[in-house]
Amino acid sequence: MILRLRGNRVWRRAFSTTPRRAEIQDAEVLQDRIIPRYQRTATSDLLSLQWPSPPRNILMIKKDYAPAVTESLIEYAKHIHSNYDNVSLIFEPRVASEIHESFPFPVYTTTKTSILPKKVDMVTTLGGDGTILHASSIFSTTLYVPPILSFSMGTLGFLGEWKFAEYKRAFREVYMSGAAVSSPLIEAETHRHIQTETGDIVTGWSGVRGKFMGPTRTSKVLFRHRLKVGVFDSDGNRVIGDNTAESARGDVHAMNEVVIHRGKEAHLAIIEVFVGGRFLTEAVADGMIISTPTGSTAYSLSSGGSIIHPLVSSLMMTPICPRSLSFRPLVLPANTPITLRLSEKNRGRELEVSIDGRRRSHGVGVGMEVRVDGEDIDKGNEWGSGVPCVMRGAKSGREEDDGWVGGLNGLLKFNYPFGEE
Amino acid sequence: MILRLRGNRVWRRAFSTTPRRAEIQDAEVLQDRIIPRYQRTATSDLLSLQWPSPPRNILMIKKDYAPAVTESLIEYAKHIHSNYDNVSLIFEPRVASEIHESFPFPVYTTTKTSILPKKVDMVTTLGGDGTILHASSIFSTTLYVPPILSFSMGTLGFLGEWKFAEYKRAFREVYMSGAAVSSPLIEAETHRHIQTETGDIVTGWSGVRGKFMGPTRTSKVLFRHRLKVGVFDSDGNRVIGDNTAESARGDVHAMNEVVIHRGKEAHLAIIEVFVGGRFLTEAVADGMIISTPTGSTAYSLSSGGSIIHPLVSSLMMTPICPRSLSFRPLVLPANTPITLRLSEKNRGRELEVSIDGRRRSHGVGVGMEVRVDGEDIDKGNEWGSGVPCVMRGAKSGREEDDGWVGGLNGLLKFNYPFGEE
Amino acid sequence: MILRLRGNRVWRRAFSTTPRRAEIQDAEVLQDRIIPRYQRTATSDLLSLQWPSPPRNILMIKKDYAPAVTESLIEYAKHIHSNYDNVSLIFEPRVASEIHESFPFPVYTTTKTSILPKKVDMVTTLGGDGTILHASSIFSTTLYVPPILSFSMGTLGFLGEWKFAEYKRAFREVYMSGAAVSSPLIEAETHRHIQTETGDIVTGWSGVRGKFMGPTRTSKVLFRHRLKVGVFDSDGNRVIGDNTAESARGDVHAMNEVVIHRGKEAHLAIIEVFVGGRFLTEAVADGMIISTPTGSTAYSLSSGGSIIHPLVSSLMMTPICPRSLSFRPLVLPANTPITLRLSEKNRGRELEVSIDGRRRSHGVGVGMEVRVDGEDIDKGNEWGSGVPCVMRGAKSGREEDDGWVGGLNGLLKFNYPFGEE
Amino acid sequence: MILRLRGNRVWRRAFSTTPRRAEIQDAEVLQDRIIPRYQRTATSDLLSLQWPSPPRNILMIKKDYAPAVTESLIEYAKHIHSNYDNVSLIFEPRVASEIHESFPFPVYTTTKTSILPKKVDMVTTLGGDGTILHASSIFSTTLYVPPILSFSMGTLGFLGEWKFAEYKRAFREVYMSGAAVSSPLIEAETHRHIQTETGDIVTGWSGVRGKFMGPTRTSKVLFRHRLKVGVFDSDGNRVIGDNTAESARGDVHAMNEVVIHRGKEAHLAIIEVFVGGRFLTEAVADGMIISTPTGSTAYSLSSGGSIIHPLVSSLMMTPICPRSLSFRPLVLPANTPITLRLSEKNRGRELEVSIDGRRRSHGVGVGMEVRVDGEDIDKGNEWGSGVPCVMRGAKSGREEDDGWVGGLNGLLKFNYPFGEE
Ligand SMILES: NC(=O)C1=CN([C@@H]2O[C@H](COP(=O)(O)OP(=O)(O)OC[C@H]3O[C@@H](n4cnc5c(N)ncnc54)[C@H](O)[C@@H]3O)[C@@H](O)[C@H]2O)C=CC1
Ligand SMILES: NC(=O)C1=CN([C@@H]2O[C@H](COP(=O)(O)OP(=O)(O)OC[C@H]3O[C@@H](n4cnc5c(N)ncnc54)[C@H](O)[C@@H]3O)[C@@H](O)[C@H]2O)C=CC1
Ligand SMILES: NC(=O)C1=CN([C@@H]2O[C@H](COP(=O)(O)OP(=O)(O)OC[C@H]3O[C@@H](n4cnc5c(N)ncnc54)[C@H](O)[C@@H]3O)[C@@H](O)[C@H]2O)C=CC1
Ligand SMILES: NC(=O)C1=CN([C@@H]2O[C@H](COP(=O)(O)OP(=O)(O)OC[C@H]3O[C@@H](n4cnc5c(N)ncnc54)[C@H](O)[C@@H]3O)[C@@H](O)[C@H]2O)C=CC1
Repeated sequence: MILRLRGNRVWRRAFSTTPRRAEIQDAEVLQDRIIPRYQRTATSDLLSLQWPSPPRNILMIKKDYAPAVTESLIEYAKHIHSNYDNVSLIFEPRVASEIHESFPFPVYTTTKTSILPKKVDMVTTLGGDGTILHASSIFSTTLYVPPILSFSMGTLGFLGEWKFAEYKRAFREVYMSGAAVSSPLIEAETHRHIQTETGDIVTGWSGVRGKFMGPTRTSKVLFRHRLKVGVFDSDGNRVIGDNTAESARGDVHAMNEVVIHRGKEAHLAIIEVFVGGRFLTEAVADGMIISTPTGSTAYSLSSGGSIIHPLVSSLMMTPICPRSLSFRPLVLPANTPITLRLSEKNRGRELEVSIDGRRRSHGVGVGMEVRVDGEDIDKGNEWGSGVPCVMRGAKSGREEDDGWVGGLNGLLKFNYPFGEE
Repeated sequence: MILRLRGNRVWRRAFSTTPRRAEIQDAEVLQDRIIPRYQRTATSDLLSLQWPSPPRNILMIKKDYAPAVTESLIEYAKHIHSNYDNVSLIFEPRVASEIHESFPFPVYTTTKTSILPKKVDMVTTLGGDGTILHASSIFSTTLYVPPILSFSMGTLGFLGEWKFAEYKRAFREVYMSGAAVSSPLIEAETHRHIQTETGDIVTGWSGVRGKFMGPTRTSKVLFRHRLKVGVFDSDGNRVIGDNTAESARGDVHAMNEVVIHRGKEAHLAIIEVFVGGRFLTEAVADGMIISTPTGSTAYSLSSGGSIIHPLVSSLMMTPICPRSLSFRPLVLPANTPITLRLSEKNRGRELEVSIDGRRRSHGVGVGMEVRVDGEDIDKGNEWGSGVPCVMRGAKSGREEDDGWVGGLNGLLKFNYPFGEE
Repeated sequence: MILRLRGNRVWRRAFSTTPRRAEIQDAEVLQDRIIPRYQRTATSDLLSLQWPSPPRNILMIKKDYAPAVTESLIEYAKHIHSNYDNVSLIFEPRVASEIHESFPFPVYTTTKTSILPKKVDMVTTLGGDGTILHASSIFSTTLYVPPILSFSMGTLGFLGEWKFAEYKRAFREVYMSGAAVSSPLIEAETHRHIQTETGDIVTGWSGVRGKFMGPTRTSKVLFRHRLKVGVFDSDGNRVIGDNTAESARGDVHAMNEVVIHRGKEAHLAIIEVFVGGRFLTEAVADGMIISTPTGSTAYSLSSGGSIIHPLVSSLMMTPICPRSLSFRPLVLPANTPITLRLSEKNRGRELEVSIDGRRRSHGVGVGMEVRVDGEDIDKGNEWGSGVPCVMRGAKSGREEDDGWVGGLNGLLKFNYPFGEE
Repeated sequence: MILRLRGNRVWRRAFSTTPRRAEIQDAEVLQDRIIPRYQRTATSDLLSLQWPSPPRNILMIKKDYAPAVTESLIEYAKHIHSNYDNVSLIFEPRVASEIHESFPFPVYTTTKTSILPKKVDMVTTLGGDGTILHASSIFSTTLYVPPILSFSMGTLGFLGEWKFAEYKRAFREVYMSGAAVSSPLIEAETHRHIQTETGDIVTGWSGVRGKFMGPTRTSKVLFRHRLKVGVFDSDGNRVIGDNTAESARGDVHAMNEVVIHRGKEAHLAIIEVFVGGRFLTEAVADGMIISTPTGSTAYSLSSGGSIIHPLVSSLMMTPICPRSLSFRPLVLPANTPITLRLSEKNRGRELEVSIDGRRRSHGVGVGMEVRVDGEDIDKGNEWGSGVPCVMRGAKSGREEDDGWVGGLNGLLKFNYPFGEE
């Protein structure tokens, strides 16, 4: 049975009529999320992930329109359910209804995306870079994004996906990360159940079937810093986007970039650019990109930007096809406020605004502003902010490898040599 | 009285009810055009314009939405009418109805743009580069475009406009061009009336009021070569665009470029590129530009293309934001056939096609092709083909100056030096 | 009398025979330097300079071969001497001998450049960017460079020079910086003489003739971070450069960049590039640049690099004319170790190494390495490391302005608009 | 026995004392060259080579310092000698003395390079692009360069080398080219000997051992147009380079490019650029490249130039690391005169001049000029001028394929796709 979830009515039917073995339950009933700690290590610029107690609520995101991915997702979900106690699997509504019948256990979902940041301990994705960007967008108004473990089905992407074949080892490593180092958990091994901060009873890591064999290596996490983006009308009032979370919180965060573009207009856009509160320049161009270091290998690269290592705390401003010989990309401190204002000279036209490749349904008109800022870094906190991406272990076995150099060569064909193959 | 020319009814009323002094007549009644000759000279790469008999039908094009331009157009039209016998002025319908009442003489227009190539001896524009591109588009299915004399109101553009203040001298120079050198016309000076090839009686140059004082310098013409563009569906059938002339003749010509672009889609376009019948590459990009040397300072420049002198017989292929580190612009022989085919991988999306900055109302879908070729050069003919643009006299008084070097420095700020002003 | 200081003999004669009024004394006799503090402020990313006691030993550097500059230097030196007590002026030997006769007071110099870092409280330069780079090179093996106040005679440069016309106000501002805020100094105002840390008696700020009128604004300082560069032979032994200080200390620091270049060889250089200890790529190119953010507007810009704000803690690697379509500039964390090794494939050729535009007399041969690292940042210290450049006050009167945006527009002609002047 | 040909004395000994089987003879004794015709064909932009009578004097050039190449050269030479009557093989002096003992027949050489253009019917090279450039440099003062058939030993280069394995077929094809189509030669087949224009008796194509089997396909030739370069001092007098031929004739021709470069100076060069006799700009840069379309994939490409198809009649001007944000490469008509003059601002420095990668022993000083022009095209002649390169047959079997598209993809890795291998 395939459910077509058009409107609440059908949805409600899904909750009520599906037999228990393939039940879809509301994610609201799940316990609140567990926030992990991230510790600096001497040997690496990556942080090491430490769960105070085992993660319970796992959000599983998959790429659309790819049957092979769906099958892999089912295999993966079954593996988690069989091997890890007390883990609840959350899916997006369409996915939940598509696959819940494959499982002999209930799955969770919600149509209120805004509750996910409160519930999800960890995210795992199956797909490519676009799938990770989508997962990140669910947390676009959240300061502390849960760690993301991403798998690629076919060719690897730039955002550090693991090969799907590695899923058992990879999930185990993330799930166990920190188990051996944090003393209460060692204790938990013997008692089997421990108290979480919130008073609930959960299964400790000893609940992991089979192969627990003493301290494991902790997962290495790369924080991908984001941009904070707000759209304002010509009176300075915030314009709410499609994202409902946005309406509540204000700014949204971008993992790659925010883009203003002429879109389908065959004519040039005219954009006033302010940097740190000062007028910098009037861009006459197809558009403008404000990108994170992560996004420096995405659209910005295509527009002539330099490649920035994700650990350089910065923003890059890259024009798209500027009508000027002298508009070079700029790299700015991450906390520089930037405003892009639509000049009066655009004569009433609207420009498109997209965040991480998703176009906002409403463009921006004359006098409207896109305001960008670095992500608020929680200074008191021992760990950084951003999107915590679990990195695949370095092939070379070197601790400090963040995979970036390998990605430049293997994926981007950086400085690819001339001559025959 | 302002006529709103919506539909034929109102139009007919304009023909019948307007008093004679401000009459709008149908351009179909005008005599057929006179085709000038263009001669190579020893001292210059520009050609010199030679009318076999004085031009009679002048098409006057102006920029939209610019009241100051309209006033100048009226002044200019009156000047021509008062000083040159037997000249008929043609305007686009909206312009004709806007300004005909300002004149004590009839003006001409037509809603059948396709007849203009048969009637127009010479074109003169008031506006900027966009106005010239628009004028050129009227002749986009014509092989022999009439000479274009263009004026700029404010800042000069890149396509070689004259300053409007020079209009009297400039028009006279074009009108008289070749009068003194071609012997039958010298004769015509005495007889006042001569036979044209088509047997009609016209006024010779002696009809020019006042100041004829022996041989004048001939106008120097730069032929701006065009591209020939056709759109084909996945079965290889031609897809007709908005231009009615196109439906009759097939290909349209572009003066700047043809562009395929992702338009408002926030995702990459995938385009298969064939050069000279061979598969060259799959472009994953915002779009692709195939540009003339003239267009090398337009969109192609913004996308990273080199600057090509208009006399280099070539095409340039410039990608727009390609997802590759190694897609450099290519300069190809002018007669290289190029095909841009929408890859299956675009999954049903449509891309935008624009010619000289005007978007076709229908985009191209999967499997469709944009085929580009150099303009057919009429080899038997002593002159080249392309858009014959009357160049402004070199400031330096040097015959051979085509104004290109001056334009690089003055307009494009080419190699603009660093340091304080 | 012009002294030709070739060898020690003439030098000694200079010391002994010059009459007192124009005496050149040995800088070794000067008291040891005073190290200022730099404080973060809420309103600015610049630091504010605070002297614990007034600076005494001022190193004055001027551009070579520019008579107008020499005259201005004399005027400037006389002004300092007349208005500030207990200030000793140090010049480079050639300058000292050229101008000491113009002064009714002794000046200082030394042929042992290596003692300057111990003596100089503050540096002031007259010339352009090259002069500042030269001043900085004197401290290329020093961790704590004294603050540099730089003036430009003609056109301003990119490194934040002040106009020479402002020299009185500018010098006073730097000299007084912190006088009003640090309490012991306020006390010093009344006592006239205070104890320095080293126990010497010096004149406090009250010694400044005339216009002391309560608390002044402190000077704003931009720390320009440097690169640490070492050259090693194929056995891993350090190769000493021309700089004698270098021989003692090891690495030298670069303010702009270190460059490896094919030099006069008409053929390509082949360089193996290691980043963070991992092999990144083999560069086949004219050369390689490793640049600071400061240097991003110097050679790196000419080679296609992006522009990096000086406060982004980073290095940029920019290839010079690489034989590859896909070698894009890279922006790396400031502390990334980079090694450039001459490949065996260079077949015995030597490449040139230059630091901040000064070529080392010995190039590097096959197997030799240039190793680059970010500057050691003194973590315990409240202020950063790098070259402390005194910024000119923002014209807009805004505290936080570091002049960078103004420099992009005014000097670099960033995104300079098309069209007539 | 290895001859060291230092000076005429040893040389003369070589002539006299070497036994006949390994004799080195003077190339002056050879008959004068036969000039082939080149005919346009309907199906291709390449020309087809037609010998009026079989070629006799073959210049064989090889790469230096490559023992494997020497062995192949010997094999190749033996093959020619055994299979083609009346063919004389010419080598450069050093090569002749290195290998003549391997042959049971005499070889030819000369120390007067300037006689080669009068003697050589055809050139064949073994090596890479550098070897072809060197071969072309021997004819750098000659208008009609003999056809060049080039082989590559290892990886193919960009200039259209054949694989060495194809040498038998390739040489035969060139040697026979036009034999079947030109009627007197068909006749010659029966008579065995024919009269050449110069009255000498030569062997016709029937002398080719074995496999003549009726009309063959003719060799397809790509004319690679060259630049004409002259160096002049500040008084306008020509400065003679190292090339002795140059002294006689004046200008030298470049196949790739002429480069002015700062060389080992660590500072910027300042070059005044004149185009078509007009001042264009002052380049402040590492240097300037004036390149042919052939050279557009060489140094110019590394400096950011576009890729130009060899059949686009043009020059490209590409700056090397210009100190400007707005110095874009320019593509100019092939016959545009360009002058590069060393500005007074260089303060006495010399810059390096190189042609096709070979540095002239004397640089250019202040006020000196490098003047560049397109190659004189012999208009009366039915064929173009330039370097006639024999193209390898298209793999696809398509007549018109000039291998350019294949080279872009295979060698340059043009638009190389992202993602895993
Ligand atoms: N001309 C261009 O280069 C354009 C690029 N984009 C990029 O696409 C992103 C959205 O991705 P999808 O939804 O998958 O759209 P998509 O299907 O258009 O694919 C975008 C491509 O960019 C890659 N990508 C995404 N993020 C990346 C990163 N951080 N570094 C390197 N490669 C990256 C993906 O692997 C994919 O190949 C946007 O954030 C934007 O950066 C979007 C439009 C045009
Ligand atoms: N990002 C970009 O650079 C874009 C450029 N265009 C260009 O605009 C052209 C259409 O012009 P408009 O209708 O006036 O549109 P528009 O109002 O968007 O202005 C285009 C600008 O390009 C200039 N221009 C036009 N042709 C030129 C040429 N051959 N050389 C140098 N500058 C030129 C015009 O002066 C004007 O400043 C298109 O043919 C296309 O080349 C169109 C869209 C985007
Ligand atoms: N092709 C190029 O662009 C080359 C650039 N250089 C640069 O020159 C520097 C040495 O300067 P000079 O001794 O004055 O040599 P120089 O007399 O060759 O002039 C170099 C030019 O670069 C400017 N400059 C120096 N540092 C700069 C900075 N950080 N940002 C912006 N502009 C800057 C100077 O104002 C001057 O215009 C080197 O550090 C290197 O960066 C050196 C050689 C070639
Ligand atoms: N940074 C750079 O890219 C530099 C390039 N060169 C080029 O090297 C040429 C001399 O060649 P070699 O004597 O072999 O010197 P080389 O040993 O330095 O090698 C030059 C490289 O350029 C390639 N090459 C030569 N002509 C080419 C062409 N027309 N298209 C594509 N690739 C080409 C060769 O295959 C070789 O890989 C010069 O004419 C100049 O164009 C010379 C110096 C620096």
